[in-house]
Amino acid sequence: MKTVSENTCFGGVQGVYTHTSKSCACDMTFGLFLPEEATYGPVPVLWYLSGLTCTHENAMVKAGAQGWAAEQGIALIFPDTSPRGEDVADDEAYDLGKGAGFYVNATQDPWKRHFQMWDYLAEELPALVADNFALDMERQAITGHSMGGHGALTLAMSLPGRFVSVSAFAPIAHPTASDWGRKQFAAYLGADDSTWTPHDSTLLMRDRGFDGPVLIDQGADDQFFDLLKPESLAGAMAARRQDGTFRMQKGYDHSYFFVSTFMEDHVGFHAEALHE
Amino acid sequence: MKTVSENTCFGGVQGVYTHTSKSCACDMTFGLFLPEEATYGPVPVLWYLSGLTCTHENAMVKAGAQGWAAEQGIALIFPDTSPRGEDVADDEAYDLGKGAGFYVNATQDPWKRHFQMWDYLAEELPALVADNFALDMERQAITGHSMGGHGALTLAMSLPGRFVSVSAFAPIAHPTASDWGRKQFAAYLGADDSTWTPHDSTLLMRDRGFDGPVLIDQGADDQFFDLLKPESLAGAMAARRQDGTFRMQKGYDHSYFFVSTFMEDHVGFHAEALHE
Repeated sequence: MKTVSENTCFGGVQGVYTHTSKSCACDMTFGLFLPEEATYGPVPVLWYLSGLTCTHENAMVKAGAQGWAAEQGIALIFPDTSPRGEDVADDEAYDLGKGAGFYVNATQDPWKRHFQMWDYLAEELPALVADNFALDMERQAITGHSMGGHGALTLAMSLPGRFVSVSAFAPIAHPTASDWGRKQFAAYLGADDSTWTPHDSTLLMRDRGFDGPVLIDQGADDQFFDLLKPESLAGAMAARRQDGTFRMQKGYDHSYFFVSTFMEDHVGFHAEALHE
Repeated sequence: MKTVSENTCFGGVQGVYTHTSKSCACDMTFGLFLPEEATYGPVPVLWYLSGLTCTHENAMVKAGAQGWAAEQGIALIFPDTSPRGEDVADDEAYDLGKGAGFYVNATQDPWKRHFQMWDYLAEELPALVADNFALDMERQAITGHSMGGHGALTLAMSLPGRFVSVSAFAPIAHPTASDWGRKQFAAYLGADDSTWTPHDSTLLMRDRGFDGPVLIDQGADDQFFDLLKPESLAGAMAARRQDGTFRMQKGYDHSYFFVSTFMEDHVGFHAEALHE
């Protein structure tokens, strides 16, 4: 693991690191914020998964999360959204290939060699950060925006016991029924759509739910509302009596201005679960 | 004036607007955050001037200022740092030409046609925003980062009565004695260095000071410490018994991680003066 940069930030350290990923067969970069408390012992962890076109950097610089995490004594991890590098397959569309890993393990060519983001986030990166930083891996929570909200919800529901709480900002909530999902799943996972269902938050919510609190924020003026399908997830949450809150935020769109507005609430929500 | 974008943000609106600038003889872009209170009547204004290489956008997306401004019911204005456009003179160096206006009126070729940032910020843009938004121009304050801290301090001290308070993050504090200053003043203002002195915060502090509170934050690990010369300004502030605070922040560098860490303090500092 190599250190790209470390900046003092809200009394802690905002670092950027690279490492050679076995899952993705390429070098991967991630951001990690350690609050001052980490100098005295392991701290709880909040994962933030980003959306389409993002790298590790977008949320790290635009979401205003570090101040709230510092206040709560929580570490933040900002992974990248796809494998990277010249030999990594790509597509000219913004929503397939680099920057659009969709948090799945691809089984189809030309994607399968590098696009193993599920394994990267479920196994490889947690092991790496646990080995290298003062993190309490018994206390993890996860959140994300858009495609990252999809990743956060599917990981949380598929790995029972891993995360104490999950939240999402405008998640891609029902990808098997959306052009943000069907296109990518067909490319990465193939035409057999039974392989898609483990990666759909609405279907997972209907099938199993999450053993802990859930918080979803959705902007009422989101320009991608029809692609996100929040109504499917909200319905599934209510139908299953899921412990959780779904908030429709009047006037907000899909941007980081929306994310940053509600970041304090999300960090506070996870802190309550992490500090229990 | 044209609206480029408007996003709901912390209950208010983060807008981006363009207009044809008479001072700079080109189209200029600025960001403006209006808190919810502006829907009921004029609100106080905090100007934020950015540093080298920045546009109107950097602080708008990276500094986390809107949340604090919303809490205080204060508008934020994020001007650009130089004239823009294909016919605007430029230099291959990052610290001269576009993105490096240094908040002066150039008198020398090839700069003088467009680089009139002092007039733009002292006269043209205030008049434009006063005409178009619910702003209380009797209650203005100003801050900035690096080159923008230089701009904030020189404008505040040169326009007595305009601003109720001034602050800066790691300002270029003594440009007539620094390579961040001498090079640009020579290019924009010419070899006669008597024309430079009105644009040096340390010299202005020695000569006249500011009739109101001053807050300066400086990172102790700032990679540009030697170019900024904060010790000159701190000395001048103390010598004149200037109402104000100079804080050396241990461990912090020159980045927006530093700016965002102390943004709450700066907005709160200005709010106290603006709401008096």
